[in-house]
Amino acid sequence: MKTRLTEFFGIEHPIVSAPMALISGGRLAAAVTSSGGLGLIGGGYGDSEWLEREFGLAEGTRVGCGFITWSLARSPELLDETLQRRPATIMLSFGALQPFAERIHAAGVPLTAQVQTLEHARQALDADAEILVAQGGEAGGHGMTARSTFTLVPDVVDLAAQRAPDTLVLAAGGIADGRGLAAALVLGADGAVVGTRFWASPEALVSPRAHERGLRAGGDDTYRTRVYDAVRQLDWPPEYNERALSNPFVDGWHGNEAELMTALPEAIETYEAAVATEDFEAAAILVGESIGRVDAVRPAADIVTDMAADADRILKGL
Amino acid sequence: MKTRLTEFFGIEHPIVSAPMALISGGRLAAAVTSSGGLGLIGGGYGDSEWLEREFGLAEGTRVGCGFITWSLARSPELLDETLQRRPATIMLSFGALQPFAERIHAAGVPLTAQVQTLEHARQALDADAEILVAQGGEAGGHGMTARSTFTLVPDVVDLAAQRAPDTLVLAAGGIADGRGLAAALVLGADGAVVGTRFWASPEALVSPRAHERGLRAGGDDTYRTRVYDAVRQLDWPPEYNERALSNPFVDGWHGNEAELMTALPEAIETYEAAVATEDFEAAAILVGESIGRVDAVRPAADIVTDMAADADRILKGL
Repeated sequence: MKTRLTEFFGIEHPIVSAPMALISGGRLAAAVTSSGGLGLIGGGYGDSEWLEREFGLAEGTRVGCGFITWSLARSPELLDETLQRRPATIMLSFGALQPFAERIHAAGVPLTAQVQTLEHARQALDADAEILVAQGGEAGGHGMTARSTFTLVPDVVDLAAQRAPDTLVLAAGGIADGRGLAAALVLGADGAVVGTRFWASPEALVSPRAHERGLRAGGDDTYRTRVYDAVRQLDWPPEYNERALSNPFVDGWHGNEAELMTALPEAIETYEAAVATEDFEAAAILVGESIGRVDAVRPAADIVTDMAADADRILKGL
Repeated sequence: MKTRLTEFFGIEHPIVSAPMALISGGRLAAAVTSSGGLGLIGGGYGDSEWLEREFGLAEGTRVGCGFITWSLARSPELLDETLQRRPATIMLSFGALQPFAERIHAAGVPLTAQVQTLEHARQALDADAEILVAQGGEAGGHGMTARSTFTLVPDVVDLAAQRAPDTLVLAAGGIADGRGLAAALVLGADGAVVGTRFWASPEALVSPRAHERGLRAGGDDTYRTRVYDAVRQLDWPPEYNERALSNPFVDGWHGNEAELMTALPEAIETYEAAVATEDFEAAAILVGESIGRVDAVRPAADIVTDMAADADRILKGL
């Protein structure tokens, strides 16, 4: 299945693994690349030692790296360290792209910019991003409620085609099987960024108990909330929230954020105790709506090859 | 383009026009059916005279009719009146399907049930609905924030295949062009229900000024809110909201619903004055995220034939 994405990176399948913070380490990224996709390490909030270790675990396999942009602005030296490792791409999500875009381009590395709205897409084109990732709200973890994959992808495809036609557009949010990949291509994307499906792989930095809990969940069991950012004391800009699995802890505070703020110390204590004991009645599992179609932990290589083969078969069959 | 939907109704294209309340009259429904799709009249909150007039305007063309289920429960005689007109299908949205499902089946009319979650889909299968419409939150007008088209469609397709494989599944929410129709089919749907694209047709009961305002909007310019239900004094169950175009009136009250309740009489006055003068800085335009891809008012027949031809071309080209 050849697309502009497979040509751009010289890869076999138009599948990129999402740089899930603290989940997407070097083993997952390397497994995705080795099976014909492109793997990204989740640089997340930025931790120099963690990044050094995870790039080491990729063992020289060509991988990219994603950062949370507003957080990277607080530790900008991490970008230089990462650029020295010659990543396949740097993906920036959630925040102003400059001055990072310029430094990434100066290092000769392609910039991937994740966007949640058309307005974000315009800003990413202003920053000369080579690749736009149009992320719908169905995605797990951080993002926005604003737009959905089904409409944001064609909107961004049309905008890019008009303003900078060489720009690649990838779809993110809700893509967990061959149907999703095929639909992304039909909507005009050059490929897909896949998170939740790779979350349920042995290479992801996810505990067996978390996997077990996630696999029991259905597609109706997630929603977007800011509760977990509050108890994790993460200083996210107000326009972002994150999709998490429903559980009694988050259900109890969601919609009661003012009360949560007054009871924050106790809530943090409850949350941290739950994390320490892997009690997923309170601890967070950050997966997307597509978790309902994930029913087994599978090796990343099998996920890549099956997704590509299924998409190919579906498109040929219709 | 043959699917189980085209076979079921003996139609040419797998395209159904959404029964938009007070927007989808007999002329629109008949134009959609006459051009090879299936048109639905929007029975909405239920008004016997309106329905009689609009079925009359369909001039005997085979059309279906949709109702808001919780509202129909207050005027159940409307269902019998409508069943006597031999509709192609009755579509029920937003509420408990019984006792209506039984009466629809007793009249030999296929039941179409719109669902916003997998749990709704289970209930619709319990009621032996022949057709499920999986509606993502990107849709215009009423619905839920819960799920998105991209993930809900395959979830519902899989559930139906397992429990009642003869059940048809249609995708709704975000489908406004051939790419969207093709993606819906790729995700496993048997066809698509299209609202916003037909809203921008001369046959829709929409004023030229509303069309003009809608066509200026982009995909980022809508969101789901309960503000308009409050000022229209519509007693919607709390789990539903509606997607509307952003404007100063709704932006001002959205998120400030408690204040709105205390200022409701004045807000209603402002709203009703705006409706009377077609002032869309306050009056509602209930369209979906796909409004950004709608750039002209086009005859319903052209919409149907182009959407089908484009979907066919896209699927053949990939």
